[in-house]
Amino acid sequence: MSLLSFEPNRPLDLIGLGRLCVDLNANEIHRPMEETLSFTKYLGGSPANIAVASARLGLRTGFIGKVSNDQFGRFIMKYLEDTGINTENVHVDRTGAVTGLAFTEIKSPTECSILMYRDNVADLKLEPSEVSEDYIASAKAMLVSGTALAKSPSREAVFVALEYAKKHNVVTLFDIDYRPWTWQSKTETGVYCRLVAEKCDVIVGGRDEFDLMETAVGPLRQDDRWTADHWLGKGASIIVVKRGGDGSTAYTKDGGEYKGSTFPANVVKTFGAGDSFAGAFIYGIMNGWDIPRCQEFGAASASIVVSSHSCSDAMPTAEQIQARIDRFRAEGI
Amino acid sequence: MSLLSFEPNRPLDLIGLGRLCVDLNANEIHRPMEETLSFTKYLGGSPANIAVASARLGLRTGFIGKVSNDQFGRFIMKYLEDTGINTENVHVDRTGAVTGLAFTEIKSPTECSILMYRDNVADLKLEPSEVSEDYIASAKAMLVSGTALAKSPSREAVFVALEYAKKHNVVTLFDIDYRPWTWQSKTETGVYCRLVAEKCDVIVGGRDEFDLMETAVGPLRQDDRWTADHWLGKGASIIVVKRGGDGSTAYTKDGGEYKGSTFPANVVKTFGAGDSFAGAFIYGIMNGWDIPRCQEFGAASASIVVSSHSCSDAMPTAEQIQARIDRFRAEGI
Amino acid sequence: MSLLSFEPNRPLDLIGLGRLCVDLNANEIHRPMEETLSFTKYLGGSPANIAVASARLGLRTGFIGKVSNDQFGRFIMKYLEDTGINTENVHVDRTGAVTGLAFTEIKSPTECSILMYRDNVADLKLEPSEVSEDYIASAKAMLVSGTALAKSPSREAVFVALEYAKKHNVVTLFDIDYRPWTWQSKTETGVYCRLVAEKCDVIVGGRDEFDLMETAVGPLRQDDRWTADHWLGKGASIIVVKRGGDGSTAYTKDGGEYKGSTFPANVVKTFGAGDSFAGAFIYGIMNGWDIPRCQEFGAASASIVVSSHSCSDAMPTAEQIQARIDRFRAEGI
Amino acid sequence: MSLLSFEPNRPLDLIGLGRLCVDLNANEIHRPMEETLSFTKYLGGSPANIAVASARLGLRTGFIGKVSNDQFGRFIMKYLEDTGINTENVHVDRTGAVTGLAFTEIKSPTECSILMYRDNVADLKLEPSEVSEDYIASAKAMLVSGTALAKSPSREAVFVALEYAKKHNVVTLFDIDYRPWTWQSKTETGVYCRLVAEKCDVIVGGRDEFDLMETAVGPLRQDDRWTADHWLGKGASIIVVKRGGDGSTAYTKDGGEYKGSTFPANVVKTFGAGDSFAGAFIYGIMNGWDIPRCQEFGAASASIVVSSHSCSDAMPTAEQIQARIDRFRAEGI
Repeated sequence: MSLLSFEPNRPLDLIGLGRLCVDLNANEIHRPMEETLSFTKYLGGSPANIAVASARLGLRTGFIGKVSNDQFGRFIMKYLEDTGINTENVHVDRTGAVTGLAFTEIKSPTECSILMYRDNVADLKLEPSEVSEDYIASAKAMLVSGTALAKSPSREAVFVALEYAKKHNVVTLFDIDYRPWTWQSKTETGVYCRLVAEKCDVIVGGRDEFDLMETAVGPLRQDDRWTADHWLGKGASIIVVKRGGDGSTAYTKDGGEYKGSTFPANVVKTFGAGDSFAGAFIYGIMNGWDIPRCQEFGAASASIVVSSHSCSDAMPTAEQIQARIDRFRAEGI
Repeated sequence: MSLLSFEPNRPLDLIGLGRLCVDLNANEIHRPMEETLSFTKYLGGSPANIAVASARLGLRTGFIGKVSNDQFGRFIMKYLEDTGINTENVHVDRTGAVTGLAFTEIKSPTECSILMYRDNVADLKLEPSEVSEDYIASAKAMLVSGTALAKSPSREAVFVALEYAKKHNVVTLFDIDYRPWTWQSKTETGVYCRLVAEKCDVIVGGRDEFDLMETAVGPLRQDDRWTADHWLGKGASIIVVKRGGDGSTAYTKDGGEYKGSTFPANVVKTFGAGDSFAGAFIYGIMNGWDIPRCQEFGAASASIVVSSHSCSDAMPTAEQIQARIDRFRAEGI
Repeated sequence: MSLLSFEPNRPLDLIGLGRLCVDLNANEIHRPMEETLSFTKYLGGSPANIAVASARLGLRTGFIGKVSNDQFGRFIMKYLEDTGINTENVHVDRTGAVTGLAFTEIKSPTECSILMYRDNVADLKLEPSEVSEDYIASAKAMLVSGTALAKSPSREAVFVALEYAKKHNVVTLFDIDYRPWTWQSKTETGVYCRLVAEKCDVIVGGRDEFDLMETAVGPLRQDDRWTADHWLGKGASIIVVKRGGDGSTAYTKDGGEYKGSTFPANVVKTFGAGDSFAGAFIYGIMNGWDIPRCQEFGAASASIVVSSHSCSDAMPTAEQIQARIDRFRAEGI
Repeated sequence: MSLLSFEPNRPLDLIGLGRLCVDLNANEIHRPMEETLSFTKYLGGSPANIAVASARLGLRTGFIGKVSNDQFGRFIMKYLEDTGINTENVHVDRTGAVTGLAFTEIKSPTECSILMYRDNVADLKLEPSEVSEDYIASAKAMLVSGTALAKSPSREAVFVALEYAKKHNVVTLFDIDYRPWTWQSKTETGVYCRLVAEKCDVIVGGRDEFDLMETAVGPLRQDDRWTADHWLGKGASIIVVKRGGDGSTAYTKDGGEYKGSTFPANVVKTFGAGDSFAGAFIYGIMNGWDIPRCQEFGAASASIVVSSHSCSDAMPTAEQIQARIDRFRAEGI
């Protein structure tokens, strides 16, 4: 029996839902942002990056979201379309909202920080009424990002989307993607992430993100086993706990536990590692691969992205990922 | 097998959670409010009224809520205490919030309206951190009112309270209590009421309230049977659909369906009918009565309250309710 | 030469601008509000009270303001009309605002307090575009209340009204009427009250109100002479500093200084003393009386209002005021 | 008699007050922003640009403002200090505000647009209490920008600063600098700009800006003569109406009227023309030059700035401006 059962014969493989923003990456790296002179513009936002990863890998990918009615909004829309992502459920804001920005500062490969602009952003203005039930029913799987829960009306749009997904047997994937901006408090974050996690088939997050989400449920465990048992007990099928450079562990409802490692890389910056991992991992499970192969594919993808300057632009194709795996195997790593 | 299983040996029978406000009832009835000259002050708010009903009936009753730091807040606190309701989890706001007000206008027995003051009200300022896990664990049952979901942080406080209740095996009762004030939209109301209803053992609401809650789930049914099957299917044990003067129907997870009628009354106003019904119905189920007896007790209580000027002040004792039932039986009604 | 020069042949004598609200006065006096049972409803708000006083005295009075679209708004509109006040520039809010409320508590004749409801009130929603230039041009004088400056857009409406008044040679009267509610800070209050005071011909306030308004201009003086010199120097013609039970002092641009005393009264509550004084004082100056006579008329009016239960309802006619003056004179007071 | 009288022996010549932000200028010019790949970072904001211009010209310059507590705030602070601008009255925000951003798009020399980020910006968080009376008293002149009036508390800070300036005989200069962002309405803009203009000695603005400011005062004139008479009548000494490529006209209280022309330039973009003009014009009047010479100096400075990629970075020294004037004279232009 498979862990997840995807409806066959659906026009879309995966729909992403949530944050669509612009990354402005410092061109002068290894110095504080006060001293950078210029920035290069990329599509950003965790679910956007995962959607790009998914499309590059050949999944028929769509998106539910909202962009600003300005140059940056048009840039995002065009980038999605150029990448082959279906945008028919991506709306244009009419309230004067702006595109969220992430200025990234790369002081050293391990010391990266972000200056965020999240006030009055278009992605959080998505209305429940703008979520199309038919659109969701046309997909095999839907990926929800935790940042979409940070504010109304986007928060309610997520819950409505999940109800449609359940009704139409769409597999639901939850990337906790905790970002302190926009949230009122960690308690608020925990409440809504738990409500979503209870309704999802696959939950992916860092150890810190699971800890945050679990604080009110019991004493803080920092314990992957407890995490896995708890959420598998609520109905999930796969739980993936990421630990950055230490790889990931996946837990499955049939009792499986799989430790995945990372690939060596010339790390330019750590941004994008998680999104590239998630995109490739999802690609694997949608192809029916076993969990270890999904993890290896994810890790190889991450090793490619962390050695480049961008996140979205750097998302590799399946061939590129496979080539890297083959090379490392040949080198006996 | 009983429909609900209450933990024995708990210091409290029932905890109410949510709205605590002041009713200002027009003294000159049967005229528009423009022409009323004076108002009489009472404790108000659906969960507050139910808590008062419950305490009058002899249940050991507590409350989780928040009152303003002014004369009206002190009035509410004193009224609860004088009624024998435990207030150790009722907080005093420190942000300058006010007490919600409901000016009632009784144009005729069937034409009643309310002028609501719900801006910046203390009851909606209840913080998740102010909900005591130990307090909830000390009770057999907890009643949640839908109006407490209308705004943050009270909304999150409700979800945290429900998590504690589940963890400690406290029976959860949900009174939909839809009031258009404070909510941003009906869609928002539906989203959060559904999330709560999925977690509750008993759900009580008017037909209109169930319709509102169910809009996004499927085509609007206005169909009690569909309502009952849907929510019993989500895990509830008892569903009560109220139809005002036409009585109520209760549905149970063991397949029962019970039509309850109303008692004749000299109706002064219809306010308070639902709360008095709910209080007496809960009293019945906590005493292990069968559903028809609970409904009869609720209907008799409602007939007493609608013939008086107030809601909270008029809540009867068990003896008064029984006396009314006996009288009507003697009269062959 | 007269201190003020009123344009002849204008259809209105005085226009009030600002707060229109409802007072709910405790019927059970001399006890804390927690223990009052009922309240009686009156029109309230300083400029509303002054407008009522002015109309009772026979001045052709109008009002620029905004009321809620509910029973209380209709009550206010009707009360103004019944009192003979022109309401053609009183607008009805369409945004769901409420009427401001003032619950008064009369613990003792000297210990009165107010519980205010000032969130989302209609009177502060007056838009600059709703202020009619023609309406202002049709009056001899306009009275502005400081509370109308507490929030946008009412604040901007006041400045636009003052520009129209200046353009059409309408005498401007400013009642500082400081109420801490709604204002963000005392600094903010000071900034806008000063900007208005600089543009007005007559300024009336308590000693505390002048102190508040003058804090940023220089070291706090608590000095009537400094106050008078400062504002007369900015262009005002008459400054009236009120000191409650100790009477008032008026200063005029021609160097006059007039101490006015109070009349004895059976004080029920102190609310309304200032408004009744202001209404009668304005009546006097519009009739060309000398300052001492205006002060005496104001003090007699105040002595009538403080001995009754309400503010607006108790505003006396010119005959009643004169009768009181005559009686006290006959009694040699 | 001089038009303006500057106090001698003050440590600072000019203080700027208001907007401090970051310009992100598209590196790929002559294409829509959707297609630009990278941006270069500069200090921006009209009063910041004027302060930089002033400091480059050798005036001892200070600033009253607020920056965000992040990398961009630190960049601004450092840039001001490196330019020799005194920052002791520039505060660091502690509320989580961000730096305002202006992404500029240069489609063609005459078709430039800006994508603004003005939500929750630090510069508008300046509190009245943060404006130092002693600091203002230490300067000969203070420049206020209209954008600082767009929101509280910065708006009140401006009025307090103007009161201090008046008290200490500091010449006040007002650059209308109308930007539609942040303002609620044009009526609101007009109200506050008029209140400031009434208190200033020098008013500089485009024809459109004067029109906007004057709408409520009378029928829209689009008439420089009316503008000049109106504001000189309110107490100003110099009015400068800018008409972009058509030069400027200055009007003085002694009846002077001076048409100034522009200098030819290889226009890269039009941004910064007004600020460089204002900086050089102010330099001239503080040196006691006659108006035509001030206008010529301003026009020459503008011709330098419009032919470069930035605003602040391109502000010239007095020698550079004089060299350009000399060259054009030599060429007979």
